Amino acid sequence: MRVISVIGSSSANEEEYEVAYRLGKELARRGIVVLCGGRTGVMEAVCKGAKEEGGLTVGIMPSYDGHEANPYVDIKINTGMNWNRNPIVVASGDMVVAIGGHYGTLSEIAYALILGKLVVGYRTHRVEGVKEVGSLDEILKEVDAFYSC
Amino acid sequence: MRVISVIGSSSANEEEYEVAYRLGKELARRGIVVLCGGRTGVMEAVCKGAKEEGGLTVGIMPSYDGHEANPYVDIKINTGMNWNRNPIVVASGDMVVAIGGHYGTLSEIAYALILGKLVVGYRTHRVEGVKEVGSLDEILKEVDAFYSC
Amino acid sequence: MRVISVIGSSSANEEEYEVAYRLGKELARRGIVVLCGGRTGVMEAVCKGAKEEGGLTVGIMPSYDGHEANPYVDIKINTGMNWNRNPIVVASGDMVVAIGGHYGTLSEIAYALILGKLVVGYRTHRVEGVKEVGSLDEILKEVDAFYSC
Amino acid sequence: MRVISVIGSSSANEEEYEVAYRLGKELARRGIVVLCGGRTGVMEAVCKGAKEEGGLTVGIMPSYDGHEANPYVDIKINTGMNWNRNPIVVASGDMVVAIGGHYGTLSEIAYALILGKLVVGYRTHRVEGVKEVGSLDEILKEVDAFYSC
Repeated sequence: MRVISVIGSSSANEEEYEVAYRLGKELARRGIVVLCGGRTGVMEAVCKGAKEEGGLTVGIMPSYDGHEANPYVDIKINTGMNWNRNPIVVASGDMVVAIGGHYGTLSEIAYALILGKLVVGYRTHRVEGVKEVGSLDEILKEVDAFYSC
Repeated sequence: MRVISVIGSSSANEEEYEVAYRLGKELARRGIVVLCGGRTGVMEAVCKGAKEEGGLTVGIMPSYDGHEANPYVDIKINTGMNWNRNPIVVASGDMVVAIGGHYGTLSEIAYALILGKLVVGYRTHRVEGVKEVGSLDEILKEVDAFYSC
Repeated sequence: MRVISVIGSSSANEEEYEVAYRLGKELARRGIVVLCGGRTGVMEAVCKGAKEEGGLTVGIMPSYDGHEANPYVDIKINTGMNWNRNPIVVASGDMVVAIGGHYGTLSEIAYALILGKLVVGYRTHRVEGVKEVGSLDEILKEVDAFYSC
Repeated sequence: MRVISVIGSSSANEEEYEVAYRLGKELARRGIVVLCGGRTGVMEAVCKGAKEEGGLTVGIMPSYDGHEANPYVDIKINTGMNWNRNPIVVASGDMVVAIGGHYGTLSEIAYALILGKLVVGYRTHRVEGVKEVGSLDEILKEVDAFYSC
């Protein structure tokens, strides 16, 4: 199965939420599994979009019981490791899309780059090695190019 | 989604392999996701059985890239944490089935009991708190009873 | 530096507490660092004993800030990983001494054996591979034999 | 005990190595424990400096056996978690000093800021929330101010 990690803030603004939501729909239409940190904000939006198109969603949860999962997570991976779950989120995707985000997202970007993953960034931290894009269309172009390689 | 963690040795004997394989089939028929450590032996057998019935399988992998996954793992959760992934395996299932197994399995049984999970054991370590059973049918009875509660 | 991991229940009974306390004293007299899970019970007792003899103690803490450390921990390693810290406790000692204990201790014994550590057990889980002893003197004989090898 | 986490690249340039080495000496003179990732570069330099002044050093190691520790690490905390050990490095210090560094250091800076730690940065990643300084003297001023508060 193809899996993309989507990362971003748990307190996304309206515009980030909308982009993540539409990204979730598009990934699901392509049959790509959406994997994320399983919480609110960007994580909720991308899962919600994916579910509305019949996609499959995976949440890498901070707790041992996944109680904090958003309602659109199908499979909860319960780590019990709090923030230390972050490297698992990016290691489990074929590539990574970052939308907005704060320090948690920054730690994930850093781990994705350590692991040599393609990181596509939309209005996120400016880090050397991240491929910055300015629209959902550009994110999708990167996704499609990645898998056609 | 309903998810069951299946644990056991990476070097299962023929009989353990057969039970795990048939368990995988039965779980898939019930629409239950099979989650395991993603490697050989019992983990491979249960994934193989599940896939032959069109089920969904998740492997919690020791490495960062999941190269060690058996061919029947659909979704690889790449932890990069080696043996330290074990608590995640049991925390992510609604209940746990142990088939045979060595020290890795023992660590998982211990974590499952710490977390208050039902652990059904088939020819595995004798630990207070594990519900011992003697056949695949008895495993399935426990599974069905668990979800009908 | 020589480091021994001491594991056991956070709710030790009086006798376990006494043995762990006296073990801490003896380890400190030998210049051996005491490493443990940093909490109450056996962990507190062994740290207390070590400090009374001027020893050095290390606690591998479940939380990110070590607030749950007993007062005799010198160096807090704050993992933020809750129970998932257990493999770190045993991996960081040259050898392991288990005194009493419940499921957390069982997970640590399992990890110690996975990693090929000598595990000396005093009134703890009966697991193949653990060297069972019946007194503090016998624990110390194992410690002294280990380092003189 | 007072503990400072020192982070930075495993492949430090000469100037970074020198600053880290002198920082290690100064921390040891103040009786502050040096905690780091235990490897080469900045980590080796700061441990070397600390040991030359009789200080105590702790390395949070990627492996299960600490074979990769630099020769100046007193106490090896063997995590077996590879890069996932990074949050433990910063969580275990009262404050954090970053000297140079690549993506691993960036992940540690992100975690330190998540956890609300003071991060003093010398020629490292520019991240909002990091207190940038330009010399060893300025690092030490921050250290002294931190503990006198």
